[in-house]
Amino acid sequence: LARYAYVDGRYTPHDAASVHVEDRGFQFADGVYEVVSIIGGRMIDMQGHIDRLERSLDALDMAAPLSRPVLTMIMRELIARNRVDEGIIYLQVTRGVAPRDHKFPTGIKPTLVMTTKRVDFRNQKRLSEGVKVITIPDIRWARCDIKAISLLANCMGKTQASGAGAYEAWQVDAEGRITEGTSSNVWILTRDNKLKTRMLGPEILRGVTRDSLIRIAREEGIEVVEEAFTVEEARECREAFVTSATSFLTPVVQIDDTVVGNGVPGSLSCRLQRWYLDYSSGLRETA
Amino acid sequence: LARYAYVDGRYTPHDAASVHVEDRGFQFADGVYEVVSIIGGRMIDMQGHIDRLERSLDALDMAAPLSRPVLTMIMRELIARNRVDEGIIYLQVTRGVAPRDHKFPTGIKPTLVMTTKRVDFRNQKRLSEGVKVITIPDIRWARCDIKAISLLANCMGKTQASGAGAYEAWQVDAEGRITEGTSSNVWILTRDNKLKTRMLGPEILRGVTRDSLIRIAREEGIEVVEEAFTVEEARECREAFVTSATSFLTPVVQIDDTVVGNGVPGSLSCRLQRWYLDYSSGLRETA
Repeated sequence: LARYAYVDGRYTPHDAASVHVEDRGFQFADGVYEVVSIIGGRMIDMQGHIDRLERSLDALDMAAPLSRPVLTMIMRELIARNRVDEGIIYLQVTRGVAPRDHKFPTGIKPTLVMTTKRVDFRNQKRLSEGVKVITIPDIRWARCDIKAISLLANCMGKTQASGAGAYEAWQVDAEGRITEGTSSNVWILTRDNKLKTRMLGPEILRGVTRDSLIRIAREEGIEVVEEAFTVEEARECREAFVTSATSFLTPVVQIDDTVVGNGVPGSLSCRLQRWYLDYSSGLRETA
Repeated sequence: LARYAYVDGRYTPHDAASVHVEDRGFQFADGVYEVVSIIGGRMIDMQGHIDRLERSLDALDMAAPLSRPVLTMIMRELIARNRVDEGIIYLQVTRGVAPRDHKFPTGIKPTLVMTTKRVDFRNQKRLSEGVKVITIPDIRWARCDIKAISLLANCMGKTQASGAGAYEAWQVDAEGRITEGTSSNVWILTRDNKLKTRMLGPEILRGVTRDSLIRIAREEGIEVVEEAFTVEEARECREAFVTSATSFLTPVVQIDDTVVGNGVPGSLSCRLQRWYLDYSSGLRETA
């Protein structure tokens, strides 16, 4: 099956899609990205992702590669060309190509790359059975609110999780509080039935799925407390789950060696997951 | 002038040198690098740079792209092809190309890229006149001992320095102690005449030039104290300088708004610089 990537104005066969070795994305991790899920050929939370892309670009004093309508049009076109009904579109913007120098250069053209991948989201066992997570120290930089491609620490954490037979690693700050997963936000239903997820700040990425789920939960009359919690609080919780554009709402049934609740996805988690899946399939309206 | 880059087994015209958009160096900053200076066509501290490259690869569980002798041979060949008498060779190894997934993939071939650049090191005014630096919070990750390409924070710091009319930004840890510059190690001669540079640890990169200068200083009977120091201690110092493969020993004459000493490079700094330049020109033997 021929697949295309979009690179700087051209739809290129995926295998031939390349960038210059002096692209600042390759030499300095000087770039940002977004991953948008697609269901039924439709992008989920598109606005939220483009909003965040613009925030990331702003935070790094980077120019937007294209206007919002043109960007959106190209995303739709690539999805159509690659006939992606269910899957993801990945979008990366870097500062561009320049002779190697740490200082941000001016007057260069940003690099824009997009790729797609087909993923059969709804048949993933982890959505129904839940997953194990481990906890690890958060060794990342102080600006995790920027969705930058400087993801080496996240990759190390995810690899460690995988080595421990876990789906995700929850990162823990110097005060023993969970920040977020290496590619997801973390949620718990506490012993006293509070649905908690960490407050926004430079320590975490503002998840688009997190935003949507907060909105959906509140519409359903469920209070969401945005507050930090410790590993101990998490281990004693009733339910736990992670959210991200590609894991949707994935229940967590084990944290390190501690089984969560009865070891199966909790009932609130299941309800929220169903609401979110309905929303992402276009079966549910939200504000 | 035609310049070549080396990319994965081939000498390619520089302008055409590219890597795939799913190279993990481009998507995850999953790679390491070295910059080696060249004087008189000869690489300075080659052994030290290759040793460190191997340590960086080990720390990230990455395979070496080539054996040490072959790597060295290719570096020499590229320098010869590009007729670099004075300048740098830049070498980058990434984990390779794989479908995007945070977890380290196995069984893929590392990507190896090399480029060169001519630089007229010895006519740079900053070596004789000194430079201004600013101090900024160190916002980087907890593994700065790995020479990884996840350099976005360093780029932000260098850009901030440039905006303030400074050559470098010294990064300061939570305890108010200087870690290192965004692309250099920091040294001071304290009020009580101690030559200090921060001790090794995960907070700083073990500079190859730092190593060489420690050796040279000790050969000259000058004691080097490897110890952390605060911004206040630095502002009250007699002399200050930075070291790196490309800045050699660059004297610092101003820290934020504070003039260092008499505002000109200090006498110990000048002697150390001369010894280091002699060493790097092959005019001086060291152990």
